[in-house]
Amino acid sequence: MIVVKIGGTKGVNFDAVAEDVAVQVKQGQKLIVVHGGSGETNAISEQLGHPPQFVTSPSGFTSRYTDRQTLEIFAMVTSGKINTLIVERLQKLGVNALGLSGVDGRLMVAKRKESIRIIDPKTGKQRLLRDDYTGKIETVNSALLLELLDSGYTPVIAPLAISPEGDALNVDADRAAAMVAGAVNAERLIILSNVPGLLRQFPDESTLIPHIDKAQVEKSLEFAEGRMKKKVLGASEALTLGVNEVVFADGRVTSPVANALEGKGTVIS
Amino acid sequence: MIVVKIGGTKGVNFDAVAEDVAVQVKQGQKLIVVHGGSGETNAISEQLGHPPQFVTSPSGFTSRYTDRQTLEIFAMVTSGKINTLIVERLQKLGVNALGLSGVDGRLMVAKRKESIRIIDPKTGKQRLLRDDYTGKIETVNSALLLELLDSGYTPVIAPLAISPEGDALNVDADRAAAMVAGAVNAERLIILSNVPGLLRQFPDESTLIPHIDKAQVEKSLEFAEGRMKKKVLGASEALTLGVNEVVFADGRVTSPVANALEGKGTVIS
Repeated sequence: MIVVKIGGTKGVNFDAVAEDVAVQVKQGQKLIVVHGGSGETNAISEQLGHPPQFVTSPSGFTSRYTDRQTLEIFAMVTSGKINTLIVERLQKLGVNALGLSGVDGRLMVAKRKESIRIIDPKTGKQRLLRDDYTGKIETVNSALLLELLDSGYTPVIAPLAISPEGDALNVDADRAAAMVAGAVNAERLIILSNVPGLLRQFPDESTLIPHIDKAQVEKSLEFAEGRMKKKVLGASEALTLGVNEVVFADGRVTSPVANALEGKGTVIS
Repeated sequence: MIVVKIGGTKGVNFDAVAEDVAVQVKQGQKLIVVHGGSGETNAISEQLGHPPQFVTSPSGFTSRYTDRQTLEIFAMVTSGKINTLIVERLQKLGVNALGLSGVDGRLMVAKRKESIRIIDPKTGKQRLLRDDYTGKIETVNSALLLELLDSGYTPVIAPLAISPEGDALNVDADRAAAMVAGAVNAERLIILSNVPGLLRQFPDESTLIPHIDKAQVEKSLEFAEGRMKKKVLGASEALTLGVNEVVFADGRVTSPVANALEGKGTVIS
């Protein structure tokens, strides 16, 4: 079993990823796709007159501020558009894909961050932000995924979760992929984005780090810039949950999944 | 087994429908929800600068003209927003709802209408319209629905289908509900909208037709205005497929599902 995370960032070659996923599935590989969608959510939020807002935590992580209206736009774009288009693309290639978000069948249950501590961009001081519909996944309904896989479906998962109280929540797609990989005992988690892997000196692609020992993964956070920090944290979580290997690989090229399986990219094991 | 179609039109009380669906499910009723979403798709299409276009067939049926951009907006709104919000609402009420569109797992396979004959609104003459992503459902993957129901999930279905070639298509939600009801051998199909049932003289609600013999259902098309025509056609299809009873009932009131089960509305049997 492998879990393939497809980044929503520009440059990722969705056609190549879908073709390569189809090759894997037809070879009998059980596979789950998890995708993001921040970039497109931002564009559509702008068009709908509700521009995206981002906040930075005291430890330097950037995340989306998700008020209720943003949550509904995020659901529209990730679960309605991106998910449907990935499923459609896979169906055209003969893969019986089936799209879900974490709300469906309580696939991903997350603890809602009732308040988040942020750095106020105006004052530079810390303050608490409430009414945020963001969560941290705590459990994955692996029974549902395994049942669908057993019946021949290829699950495609959008990054929404549900709180124990039943509120839909925006969750980080990299960490969602990590939690899913852990829950289904995947051998590998492949994280495709628009860089060839973890770079010692971003954005210099010649400084690709080919291998990181799983005991050292937290240390590699120092090389990770911006969004890559969450990917490294996701990798760390997946390894802790028993996934054998996490690969950060290039999603802009042909055969991106096969390349990752051959060890091209940054392999953490 | 019952199938409940919830109209996307204004006035339908989604909270009351969800509460009543939860009562039924908790009493052990196997139930599938099918919903529409035309109204909200129109509003968001306008906001996104791609206003909806409608066409009228020579026989007087009005339908959406779905170019590719409209299809993607329709998927966003119906599958991403309306579906997610219904699933969330049911989850809050303790129902393990699971949202799907017809693209997922090839749940609803439809024949694409490669060209549709319309009355040109400018000239009043007939002409052919191409590049329309609209379809007529031919098969329903009932195995998937029955498997999910057996595992304790309540399917919530958005009105998208997939062509045999793998294109996502916009389908009529009333007829989707009819095809689903037929495929799973539902005893009853309940179609909730913002009128109390089929009216002899629309919009005079005192002219409600309480019962129609199933042999006479096609005749009742003469009373049906606008959108109600497709509901009557859907009813006719469902009865042909073996559904015992179709009820057109009021979705604006409390306990709309229980009311319909008690025969309030227009019962066709």
